[in-house]
Amino acid sequence: MMLEDTETRRDQNIRWLCGHPGDALLFLSPEKTPGSGGKAILAAWDINLAKLYASQTGVMIASYNDFDRKPVKAIAAVAQKLGVPLGSKIEIPSVTPYPVFLDYVGELTDFDILCRENGAALEMRRLRAIKDEEEIIITKKAAGITNELIDSLEKNVKSGKIKTEADAALFIEVESRRQGCEGTSFGTLAAGPDRSFAIHAFPGWTVAPFGTQGLSILDFGVKLGGYCTDVTLTFVRDLDPKQEKLVNLVEKAAKLAVSMAHNGTRTKDIAAAVDALFSKSKKKMPHGLGHGVGLQEHEYPLIRNSSENEWVLEPGMIFTIEPGLYDPLLGGCRLENDILITETGHEILTTARIIRL
Amino acid sequence: MMLEDTETRRDQNIRWLCGHPGDALLFLSPEKTPGSGGKAILAAWDINLAKLYASQTGVMIASYNDFDRKPVKAIAAVAQKLGVPLGSKIEIPSVTPYPVFLDYVGELTDFDILCRENGAALEMRRLRAIKDEEEIIITKKAAGITNELIDSLEKNVKSGKIKTEADAALFIEVESRRQGCEGTSFGTLAAGPDRSFAIHAFPGWTVAPFGTQGLSILDFGVKLGGYCTDVTLTFVRDLDPKQEKLVNLVEKAAKLAVSMAHNGTRTKDIAAAVDALFSKSKKKMPHGLGHGVGLQEHEYPLIRNSSENEWVLEPGMIFTIEPGLYDPLLGGCRLENDILITETGHEILTTARIIRL
Repeated sequence: MMLEDTETRRDQNIRWLCGHPGDALLFLSPEKTPGSGGKAILAAWDINLAKLYASQTGVMIASYNDFDRKPVKAIAAVAQKLGVPLGSKIEIPSVTPYPVFLDYVGELTDFDILCRENGAALEMRRLRAIKDEEEIIITKKAAGITNELIDSLEKNVKSGKIKTEADAALFIEVESRRQGCEGTSFGTLAAGPDRSFAIHAFPGWTVAPFGTQGLSILDFGVKLGGYCTDVTLTFVRDLDPKQEKLVNLVEKAAKLAVSMAHNGTRTKDIAAAVDALFSKSKKKMPHGLGHGVGLQEHEYPLIRNSSENEWVLEPGMIFTIEPGLYDPLLGGCRLENDILITETGHEILTTARIIRL
Repeated sequence: MMLEDTETRRDQNIRWLCGHPGDALLFLSPEKTPGSGGKAILAAWDINLAKLYASQTGVMIASYNDFDRKPVKAIAAVAQKLGVPLGSKIEIPSVTPYPVFLDYVGELTDFDILCRENGAALEMRRLRAIKDEEEIIITKKAAGITNELIDSLEKNVKSGKIKTEADAALFIEVESRRQGCEGTSFGTLAAGPDRSFAIHAFPGWTVAPFGTQGLSILDFGVKLGGYCTDVTLTFVRDLDPKQEKLVNLVEKAAKLAVSMAHNGTRTKDIAAAVDALFSKSKKKMPHGLGHGVGLQEHEYPLIRNSSENEWVLEPGMIFTIEPGLYDPLLGGCRLENDILITETGHEILTTARIIRL
């Protein structure tokens, strides 16, 4: 099996498996005899980084440049080095573009090239959806930092120290690193009252006012040892009755959804309950209710009201619940927290809230 | 033809064609009779943003949610709306994963689904590689802002106001927005002497010292009205002779490469000349020599020493020249500027340099 992390197709599975942060191919071969252990070769673009991050996991490190940074060439060479028998199945990433897949099949005629949705990618998605003890510990640490940031953001918006979208975004950039984070989980979205109507404001932040009259959305997360948080606060000030109604509805939806989060629940039932609540007030949420968080800011399970969504909550899953409503005139409101499913119920890891100014 | 911009497969062609920043499908149908004009439908996830950014280009705007955010469903509905005859060719993005391509073919049996490297994607790549007058004007403005930042960065590192990687990165974040930019072109890479050995430092920046003894790399760009710059400075202080040699070699390579940049030159010849120069000193550059810049920080032409690289410079092309050398003990040095090819030669748009402290 080959995994690929490249500029246009990122794959955190490589980091998950061997610690290397990216721009690399990772080859895994199965055990020849049970218990013998499979083999792993990391072909990294930056071999200096690979030695720093991946060498302790026992993976063999090669230079991707030695294969001219060509996956086909690397597959052929690695297959030979590992003694993979001709005719063996070699799985490539499920996201491989169709024309690239044709190249692989055309050039690697000695092997059976597999590219499928329901193969290794799906298996890793399922494995990663349930966090192990170590992953839960680091995510809780990241959540703790996130919660301190939330308190400081509230204090600084209230005191007038944070006046613009840029003030809020830069505060998060600086403070997250100061607390030892790798950085933010994604580009912070800070949208003051004039821009909060968008689900994902564009650009993510500007020098526009933040926390002034109306609805201001702040969507951010921190990344600690690779693990992400993802929260959204809405700061509100001097609302008119229609805005007040929007905010109350989002708060109610968040409460309802979180109350339903426990072992065995189908995630589509949670999302359907929120859709039904909004629908009673003739409102419609233009995005899914939530998603897993982990090494990526968006992973599994999905929390979405669609017939194909078959995810059922299990202990160890960590995901967001993030109801939101948006109106071109009133502005937008979203409330997002990260939830951990436990044997007996759930833990709400983050303390995002509606902040009334 | 359908274009898709989604979280895992970004496509700036949609912005290039209709102004909408992303998370959307764009459908283009050809003219029925010459001169009649084709039709364009934008199915946007965020319809409020689409109205703001794309309505003035005359594209019809639809809600992607009305198709349950499913490309297959959207294609079928749009084909019907536009009266596309059964059996017509419909081109989908060349980056469509193989399993997704199979779904399209299986579900859209009334049409001939094309997914190819040498189709519309290649044509748009070629068109976008040569900037028009308006694109050159905005890129020059972005370069002007970049150059002011370079001067301020030099001043502030020299005065001690910028002491850490974080100081440098945050200065760029703030000042770029203050000058009216959308933001940075990519996550700034600020690597002090302890981390500059990596081609792309990981994480991009930390609170570690910057500009202290040795080699510090600063790779950044700004994005103005969608258009990117991309430059790399190396700050050097109290070098030992081996480090001095590394820096001089990189400076020499940059000078050589830029001197070769004019209309009609094969880009692989420029990259080969730099490789040969490094090779004489028994050094090897672990990355390509450069790449186009525009709506993406990495686009075309490629400036790379490989047999498949067939790019030839033409007036209107804007690209980086960025020789670099990296050593786990000495640290790294890279020097990157943005070059515009003109009828008579070239213009160096940016003023990145080795800054001796």
